[in-house]
Amino acid sequence: MKKLINDVSTIVRDSMAGMEKAHPDLVKAHYNPNFLTWAAGPVKGKVAVVSGGGSGHEPLHGGFVGKGMLNAACPGEVFTSPTPDQMEEATKAVDGGAGVLHIVKNYSGDVMNFEMAADLCREANIEVEAVVIDDDVAVQDSLYTQGRRGVGATVFAEKIAGAAAARGSDLATVKKLVEQVNDNGRSMGMALTSCIVPAAGKPTFDLKDDEIEIGIGIHGEPGRERTKMKTAAELADMLTSAVVDDVPFKSGDNVFVMLNGMGGTPLMELYLLYNEVTGILGKRGIKISRNLVGNYITSLEMQGFSITIVKVNDELVTLFDAPVHTPALRW
Amino acid sequence: MKKLINDVSTIVRDSMAGMEKAHPDLVKAHYNPNFLTWAAGPVKGKVAVVSGGGSGHEPLHGGFVGKGMLNAACPGEVFTSPTPDQMEEATKAVDGGAGVLHIVKNYSGDVMNFEMAADLCREANIEVEAVVIDDDVAVQDSLYTQGRRGVGATVFAEKIAGAAAARGSDLATVKKLVEQVNDNGRSMGMALTSCIVPAAGKPTFDLKDDEIEIGIGIHGEPGRERTKMKTAAELADMLTSAVVDDVPFKSGDNVFVMLNGMGGTPLMELYLLYNEVTGILGKRGIKISRNLVGNYITSLEMQGFSITIVKVNDELVTLFDAPVHTPALRW
Repeated sequence: MKKLINDVSTIVRDSMAGMEKAHPDLVKAHYNPNFLTWAAGPVKGKVAVVSGGGSGHEPLHGGFVGKGMLNAACPGEVFTSPTPDQMEEATKAVDGGAGVLHIVKNYSGDVMNFEMAADLCREANIEVEAVVIDDDVAVQDSLYTQGRRGVGATVFAEKIAGAAAARGSDLATVKKLVEQVNDNGRSMGMALTSCIVPAAGKPTFDLKDDEIEIGIGIHGEPGRERTKMKTAAELADMLTSAVVDDVPFKSGDNVFVMLNGMGGTPLMELYLLYNEVTGILGKRGIKISRNLVGNYITSLEMQGFSITIVKVNDELVTLFDAPVHTPALRW
Repeated sequence: MKKLINDVSTIVRDSMAGMEKAHPDLVKAHYNPNFLTWAAGPVKGKVAVVSGGGSGHEPLHGGFVGKGMLNAACPGEVFTSPTPDQMEEATKAVDGGAGVLHIVKNYSGDVMNFEMAADLCREANIEVEAVVIDDDVAVQDSLYTQGRRGVGATVFAEKIAGAAAARGSDLATVKKLVEQVNDNGRSMGMALTSCIVPAAGKPTFDLKDDEIEIGIGIHGEPGRERTKMKTAAELADMLTSAVVDDVPFKSGDNVFVMLNGMGGTPLMELYLLYNEVTGILGKRGIKISRNLVGNYITSLEMQGFSITIVKVNDELVTLFDAPVHTPALRW
């Protein structure tokens, strides 16, 4: 295993320290338990938004901490749920008195630990609500999941929640908007290569030189099928069709699209794929109102991509366009 | 070879089309010859800044086209210089009557072709100046280069040039600022893995499971040495020391630092490395005034990183902080 690390046991801390040093105006790192908060501190009278999950999916979630998005992120060990004390302390650190929303990707450990943290915070008289994101259409139930896995829609959910909180929406409204994103958002991914979890030291799975995995999970969980390598046009069509037919999205729908790299995919390939997706959605009469192309929810150095589509209305577009200033997303 | 493409011969065009569709407010794609321009069009009375080079280093250069940075970028085939007609047409398309600066990475083909394009533009009464960036301390002369190779300092050069042009500096001033960045900027990179040039279909070089290349070029050109895998702290020290000792940078210097991923490196490893670099520079009394951590000048899916350090004064900091709105850099 060749990785740019010092010690498997200190990767998360070492990386958090670097993030704080790179963005001292945006991110403050807390240790034991580990979490990152917006450097501006808690905002009195506004809802706070907290997320977290296993590390190795960067920039998710720490890269989205800052103005107009997350108030805190809790990084677990690589591909491992954070522990309840991380979410509890993060929630207490950012609570501004108007309640805290937890955005949780649907993996059994994450869901259980966020629930425990929420209970502990409620005992301390902090109002906490949670939305579980389950947008991956690839498989029903999976290695670490009951029901669909939570993947790319999380990025849009965090942006919308942060914007709604910033404009002063109450906790019930912020929660409802995130549910709207999740109910109307679907994703699917594929992999050309595996990744290596540092603590394991070897590839999570093996693919032959001409083989790919369709419907891969962000931890390398098996997808729908292993198949021979295909063209970008064919792959874009397979994934886009699977996503579009699931909701289903219809002609006339306005959508957000994210063409996401798995971490090891060249940016020029992501733009090339996005070009294919625009053609496929165009033929179906689906209108892309906003897009993200790049690495937003990754699987370490895995090569591959995922596509996320969210049906939106004017309010979601306005919230997406609202100012954001985080390490990984800003406008 | 597993790549997310349709056909080796159309990768660059297909990717340009996707970039235009993802960022129609920022980037306009032109074909035959291929170049990207700022969607706002030429700016009357202001200097225009044009760069370009082989594709496969994205977001460089196309990702830096937009407000406050590049007016145009000319993508060649993967790892291949653009042809003179690309730079000629791009220069003519963005000239606002105040002259055009070419920012050229020091590779023999790029330098020759940009010179030919500049001559053709001068015949058409467009004032053109050029600065050749040669910041890579790894080797003197290289596979495609006489003298040092041009790498990471290009990113800062393009940001500074674009900001100077936007505030209304004349061509001589913009050129002088870019020369200042280049004269005071140094870089070095390393690789854990090779990359695969699509037209070649196989890895550019081979590294054993425990072997790395120190001083790698952005096209996989050999560096200073092949050695056994080391810790992030050791690697950060090797590269940072080589860069710092070259200028040399001294205690009390203010610098820009870029901790750049080669394309296939997880972001958490880049932040971890940046943490090491801050410690090393801190011990030497060198003050980091601004930083970039992420994928800015890549080598397709290569795993590895490079570090760029530029000694700066207040004017360069002000220009760095000036507004920028491009696909890959914005504030």
